[in-house]
Amino acid sequence: MIQAISLSEILKLFPDSRREGTTCFTEIRGIASLDASKPGDLSFLGNLKYRLQVKDSKASVIFLPENYTGLPHNDQLFIYMHDPSVGITEICKLIEKKHKASLNDGVHPRAFVDETAKIPPSVSVGPFSFVDENVEIGAESIIESHCHIGKNVKIGKRCRVYPGVKILAFCELMDGVVLNAGAVIGSEGFGFNQVGEAHNKIPHLGKVVIENDVEIGANACVDRARFEETRIGEMTKIDNLVQIGHNVKIGKGCLIVAQVGISGSVTMEDNVVVGGQAGFSGHIRVGKNSKIAGQAGITKNVEPGAYLKGNPAIPVQLAHRISILQRKLPELFDRFSHIEERM
Amino acid sequence: MIQAISLSEILKLFPDSRREGTTCFTEIRGIASLDASKPGDLSFLGNLKYRLQVKDSKASVIFLPENYTGLPHNDQLFIYMHDPSVGITEICKLIEKKHKASLNDGVHPRAFVDETAKIPPSVSVGPFSFVDENVEIGAESIIESHCHIGKNVKIGKRCRVYPGVKILAFCELMDGVVLNAGAVIGSEGFGFNQVGEAHNKIPHLGKVVIENDVEIGANACVDRARFEETRIGEMTKIDNLVQIGHNVKIGKGCLIVAQVGISGSVTMEDNVVVGGQAGFSGHIRVGKNSKIAGQAGITKNVEPGAYLKGNPAIPVQLAHRISILQRKLPELFDRFSHIEERM
Amino acid sequence: MIQAISLSEILKLFPDSRREGTTCFTEIRGIASLDASKPGDLSFLGNLKYRLQVKDSKASVIFLPENYTGLPHNDQLFIYMHDPSVGITEICKLIEKKHKASLNDGVHPRAFVDETAKIPPSVSVGPFSFVDENVEIGAESIIESHCHIGKNVKIGKRCRVYPGVKILAFCELMDGVVLNAGAVIGSEGFGFNQVGEAHNKIPHLGKVVIENDVEIGANACVDRARFEETRIGEMTKIDNLVQIGHNVKIGKGCLIVAQVGISGSVTMEDNVVVGGQAGFSGHIRVGKNSKIAGQAGITKNVEPGAYLKGNPAIPVQLAHRISILQRKLPELFDRFSHIEERM
Repeated sequence: MIQAISLSEILKLFPDSRREGTTCFTEIRGIASLDASKPGDLSFLGNLKYRLQVKDSKASVIFLPENYTGLPHNDQLFIYMHDPSVGITEICKLIEKKHKASLNDGVHPRAFVDETAKIPPSVSVGPFSFVDENVEIGAESIIESHCHIGKNVKIGKRCRVYPGVKILAFCELMDGVVLNAGAVIGSEGFGFNQVGEAHNKIPHLGKVVIENDVEIGANACVDRARFEETRIGEMTKIDNLVQIGHNVKIGKGCLIVAQVGISGSVTMEDNVVVGGQAGFSGHIRVGKNSKIAGQAGITKNVEPGAYLKGNPAIPVQLAHRISILQRKLPELFDRFSHIEERM
Repeated sequence: MIQAISLSEILKLFPDSRREGTTCFTEIRGIASLDASKPGDLSFLGNLKYRLQVKDSKASVIFLPENYTGLPHNDQLFIYMHDPSVGITEICKLIEKKHKASLNDGVHPRAFVDETAKIPPSVSVGPFSFVDENVEIGAESIIESHCHIGKNVKIGKRCRVYPGVKILAFCELMDGVVLNAGAVIGSEGFGFNQVGEAHNKIPHLGKVVIENDVEIGANACVDRARFEETRIGEMTKIDNLVQIGHNVKIGKGCLIVAQVGISGSVTMEDNVVVGGQAGFSGHIRVGKNSKIAGQAGITKNVEPGAYLKGNPAIPVQLAHRISILQRKLPELFDRFSHIEERM
Repeated sequence: MIQAISLSEILKLFPDSRREGTTCFTEIRGIASLDASKPGDLSFLGNLKYRLQVKDSKASVIFLPENYTGLPHNDQLFIYMHDPSVGITEICKLIEKKHKASLNDGVHPRAFVDETAKIPPSVSVGPFSFVDENVEIGAESIIESHCHIGKNVKIGKRCRVYPGVKILAFCELMDGVVLNAGAVIGSEGFGFNQVGEAHNKIPHLGKVVIENDVEIGANACVDRARFEETRIGEMTKIDNLVQIGHNVKIGKGCLIVAQVGISGSVTMEDNVVVGGQAGFSGHIRVGKNSKIAGQAGITKNVEPGAYLKGNPAIPVQLAHRISILQRKLPELFDRFSHIEERM
């Protein structure tokens, strides 16, 4: 997605920075790591352990920490700053903003927007997207191609909804929400009444509410609640292919890595970090600031601040100790047989 | 998805029920649990352990078991019945029916239906859905937006196909099937002939058959068979993000929780229950009425009625016993060293 | 997807083969295993352990190894060949080619192709697919329905892109790539800068490059790199619902089974085989020709040729030995208590 950015735009972002050297490139063509850069690229020294790579880097512009010593090559510009990683992120945001702006074309002629939907002119709706009755979308939100925005859905300001996302009827997104491609918001919950051998469906009439600045990964699924709401708290980030069951409540600032599964009616408090492919049984409470290792299986309430691993999950230090001892089981069984023989 | 329902409609469903109190709300605005209800809501006492919540509930109408004692507040109506949970499900079905009816609009002008497709007038096809050659769809089925219904696909009566579902060529759905958003039916099987270091693709020319009243979750995938069919038996319910490999046969009335993976040519008999994220190796048989715990790894045939856990999977009671003993390994190693010293 | 194929087409593929018997079926209606075949079907003896099934098979045409002894029934044709499995694959390819040809209709009137896109006439674009600015697609590629082909995407020759695939801006497919339905290529990477309690998004401006003859499963996700590229090497096959993180490099000829998760910046060398639901921590190197068992959790570098299992992963033989000993833990604890009593 790298797009050209002019050197003058870069310099304008860091007006007071110290500089060394010059480059004939007036347009930067890409950003790359120090060792992968080619002439025309911008690079940066984000971590001092890579300092020796600066000397051999072919990048035309390099962001460096203020205490870096060393001189640019011919046709190479050094720009010094407090934190080059932050500097690069500023550049990336500028590029991303340009890219995003290019999507802001209003409603595409091949989109279908119901006449009852309320969409301000700053909203973009991509080709083949469908916006159903009574939908409300806030200013500057971007709905890309092939999205389904169901009846009575509410979408806040500055949201970004990538291609092929389905937001089913009555669900709500607050401001600044990002939904990656193919995510499904508001699928039916997996709840059945067992009557003899039949599983009779329980209708799910609730909704999903996604708070400010939440991001949800590609092809992830969030089920609607039975009556009330499934809720994802502010600033929580959810990775690709994650499953969130009906009536789940997730707190603020959680990080949930790819392919995690959270069963129905789980309550997860704030700032929980969950490693990839971990799973949670239904109806449990996961305390704030807890940390769950990848592939862990959580079947009981988790204390705030706990750090658990394994299935059944145990504190991570105990888990590591047991892992080491398990590898010694063959030896233990042998030693044990020796002792039995001598008794 | 809660939609208003009039009090008179509710009362008509329970004509002979005993009642206590009155409410000025002639329209119910939502269903909620006892403690979350607001004036205008309908609530219910489904489990006696919550009986103390009735007194403080702000719901305007409450369904109660016949033996409940206690009086309604001002502007509150109690309706007594044999099983309030069943009563609520009746109400939910009524609401769902209304919601579903609002989708029955026939073929949307922005859909594309091939002229050879056979679709009775009671079928609904949403915007941007594509129905290919020789497709047959049964009465009262709803195909929502952005669906791909491939060549020669057969869909039964009263099916519900949510937005963005892809049913690829030659696959078949019987009656009452529900496919949640983004599900893929009939993807290529993962089968290759190893020739030297190359993996040569094996074409997959079979199909998928989904029997009556099966439900399949959002973004779940069911691969087509190599020649014949992958088959999902009557009344089986499959959750979100589940993977069903080529040539798998699943029996009737199974429950398969989210993110389970079933490899190619597995045969699963009737009424098996599989916990989330469990995985099955290919070509095995899983006996009827067996139960597989979440995250279990099943690599061998499973006896009917077995209850397995872990990877490699073992009977659940043994697994629990071993889990407890594993946590005692540090202690065991210590005790063992003491003994060795004393010998 | 089985389609009729005439007997004369079959015979033309094996002109010099020895034959026995005749059939009145001039059209073959399907391919099936020996025991499931019906009159009109083609079957084959691919594995000698099924030789006894030939005698009872109702197939009208059977491919047999040259050393098979036994005679056809009435109205049954035997065709002898070196390797009947290879013979069937030839037939399947013929059928698949016909099926594929029926998709080559050029750009569907309900597709939307930007005027700057470069698409030769042999390319097919299905209904409701969107091809954005500056896209380039190579000869004979098929883009099915509901696909999103983002800005500046490059697609090689003879690719097959199934319905509902999203290829986001700037990503590249080389020749012969197959993307199954619902796959997402180029979603945002899951990378955030922790600033106090906030997770600030790191923009992902890189791309995804998919080399020749790669196949990717339904609803799988491949994240774009932060700056440079996420890359999938030639001939690698990736199954359904797999997650590939940002900046991952996967070598040539790998096989990655369903629901595997590969975290950001992993390097996987050539010819690695990964069982279903395995997971990889970020920033590790997985050596060539290594094998990872299903559900394994890989948190450290893997040596070339290693075969690992479990979480934490250990060599598969040690893992099997430990599994057996774990099941003996109850017995060991008992034996141990006896010894302690006697000391």
